[in-house]
Amino acid sequence: MATNTVSHVVPSPAEDAAALLKAFQGWGTDEQAVIAILARRDATQRKQIVLTYEQMYNESLLQRLQSELSGDFERAMCHWILDPDERQAVMANAAMKCIQEDYQVIIEIACTNSPSELIAVKKAYHVLYKCSLEEDVAACTTGNLRSLLLALVSTYRYDGKDVNMGLAKSEAKIVHEAVRNGTIDHEELIRIVGTRSKAQLKATFSCFKDEHSSSITKALHATDPTCYLRALRTTVRCIADPNKYFAKVLRNATREAGTDEDTLTRVVVMHAEKDMKGICGAFQKRSSVTLEQVIAKETSGDYRNFLMALLGS
Amino acid sequence: MATNTVSHVVPSPAEDAAALLKAFQGWGTDEQAVIAILARRDATQRKQIVLTYEQMYNESLLQRLQSELSGDFERAMCHWILDPDERQAVMANAAMKCIQEDYQVIIEIACTNSPSELIAVKKAYHVLYKCSLEEDVAACTTGNLRSLLLALVSTYRYDGKDVNMGLAKSEAKIVHEAVRNGTIDHEELIRIVGTRSKAQLKATFSCFKDEHSSSITKALHATDPTCYLRALRTTVRCIADPNKYFAKVLRNATREAGTDEDTLTRVVVMHAEKDMKGICGAFQKRSSVTLEQVIAKETSGDYRNFLMALLGS
Repeated sequence: MATNTVSHVVPSPAEDAAALLKAFQGWGTDEQAVIAILARRDATQRKQIVLTYEQMYNESLLQRLQSELSGDFERAMCHWILDPDERQAVMANAAMKCIQEDYQVIIEIACTNSPSELIAVKKAYHVLYKCSLEEDVAACTTGNLRSLLLALVSTYRYDGKDVNMGLAKSEAKIVHEAVRNGTIDHEELIRIVGTRSKAQLKATFSCFKDEHSSSITKALHATDPTCYLRALRTTVRCIADPNKYFAKVLRNATREAGTDEDTLTRVVVMHAEKDMKGICGAFQKRSSVTLEQVIAKETSGDYRNFLMALLGS
Repeated sequence: MATNTVSHVVPSPAEDAAALLKAFQGWGTDEQAVIAILARRDATQRKQIVLTYEQMYNESLLQRLQSELSGDFERAMCHWILDPDERQAVMANAAMKCIQEDYQVIIEIACTNSPSELIAVKKAYHVLYKCSLEEDVAACTTGNLRSLLLALVSTYRYDGKDVNMGLAKSEAKIVHEAVRNGTIDHEELIRIVGTRSKAQLKATFSCFKDEHSSSITKALHATDPTCYLRALRTTVRCIADPNKYFAKVLRNATREAGTDEDTLTRVVVMHAEKDMKGICGAFQKRSSVTLEQVIAKETSGDYRNFLMALLGS
C-alpha cells in the first residue's frame, strides 16, 4: 500500500499549474507550496499538471523545477514528477553508468515489479533511449554479472500462485550443489532465479532453508563476495521479501555515519505510491524507531519536508 | 500481407455455428462446407464462432472437429481455429517435446513476431501452461543451445528503425572474430543476436558481408554443424529475411522425396492471415513454380483444398 496521501478535493490541472507558477515567482521559491501541490497528486494527476503547465506557460515544468529548486530536494522532486515507468527507465539508465556500484537498482526494477510492470518500464526505456534495456545491460557488463542481470531484465515470468513442490525440492538441491564448497555452477543458478515464477522461487528458497538450516543468502555470503555474488544475493533477497529488502536498504542509507540521499530518494520516490507502507512496517520491525523518525533526524529542510509528505506525515 | 480472403458478407456467428453443425450431421462430414466457412473468417470471427458454437450446442467445436475430421486436414483445421497467440504458444510447447529436431519453431516464434506480438504469445503461454515459455525452454535444453534459445524468447527488443552504423561495424567485427577458425565465442554472439534490434542486426549482417564477401550464415556453415550452430544460423536467417527463410522452409517441406505436412501446415496456418503473400513471392522468386502449384502437386483431398483456401486460391 501507498503512504502518500492524495488530496480529497483536487484542483484542476490548470489551477495547479497556475499555483506552481505563483510559487516560482517573486523573491525566492515557495518550496512549501510546491510540496503541498505535487506531493498530494497521484501519478495521473501529476502527468496532467506537467502537460497543462507546458501548454499554459510554454516552458517545461521539469526544467523550471530544476532551476527553482536545488540539491537533494530538486533531484527527488524531478524524479517524482516523472511518469513511474519513465522514472524507472531513467533510474536504470543512470545505474548503468556505474554498474559495479549500482547494479542493485537494475535488480530492484527487474525483480520487484510484476512481469507486466517490467514490460511497461522496458517500453518506456525504448521510447526514451531508442534501444532496449537488455542491450544496454549487456553492453555495460561482462561475465556472470552480465548473465545474471541480462536474465533478470529479459525474463517475462509466470505471475500465478501455482507452485510445484517437487520442483522446488529438486531445484533447492541444485542450488545447494551449486553453492557448496564455493564452486558455484552459475549457469544453473542463473537459469533458476532468472526464469522461475516468484511464487516458485519462494518455495525453492524455503525448501533450501528447511533442508540446510540456513538461507541461500547466508550460504552465498560464505563464499568470496565478487560483484556477481553480491548481485545474486540481492536478487534472492528482492524476490524472497521485497519489504524486508528495501527496509534494509533504507537502514543502510540512513546510518548515523552518513546519509546516502540518492538511495533514500530512490526508495521513497519509487515506492511511496505503491508499497511503501509494507516497507515502513518492515523497517520498524527491525529498528526501534520508525522510518519517519530516522528521516526527521538524518535529513533537513525542504528535502525532509518532501520525504515526510511522501510518507504521509 | 495475408493470402486468405475473408468473405465480404459474413453470416452471424450463430448462423456459422448452425451451418457447421449441419456439415457435421448426416452421412459423413461435409468437409467442403467446413472449409468454406472457417477458411473465410478472420481470427476475431473464428473466435466468436468457437464461443457461439459451444454456447448453442454445449460441445467444444475443437473436439467436434477432431472427431469429424482426420489426418493432416484435422490437424491443420484444429490449429487454424485457435486464437493466433494461443496457437503459437501451443506450437512452441509441442516443439519442446523434441527440441533437437524442432528448435526452429521456437526461433521462428521468437524472431519473426514483433516484440509486442511475442509478449502476447508469452501471455497466452502463461494462461495455457501455468508457467513461462522461458522456464520451459530452459528446462528442455542445455549448454549453448539453451543460452541461445533462452535469450531469443526472453528479450524485448527495441522495435525502431534507428541504426548505429558504428556499432554495426564493430559488432560485425566481433562476430567475425567469434566465428573464424571455428573457435566461436558463443557468449558474444548470443549477446548480439539476443539483444539488438532487428534493424540494427540487419545492418550488422550487411557490414559482415561487405567486409568479408560472405554472409554470416555461410561462415557459420563452414564450422561443425552442432544443433546449436544450426539454431544460430536459423536465427540469423529469420532475422535477416523472414520471407526468404520461410520460403526455403516450404521448399524443403515440399520436396518430391516426401512432403513434411507438419511443417507445411505450420507455415501456412501461422502466416496465412499475416505475411504469407511475401513468403509466396519469395518462394516463386527462387523456384520456377508457385507455392500453390507445388502444394497442388504434393498434397491431396481436403487437406489440399484447405491449404489452397488459406492461400487465397
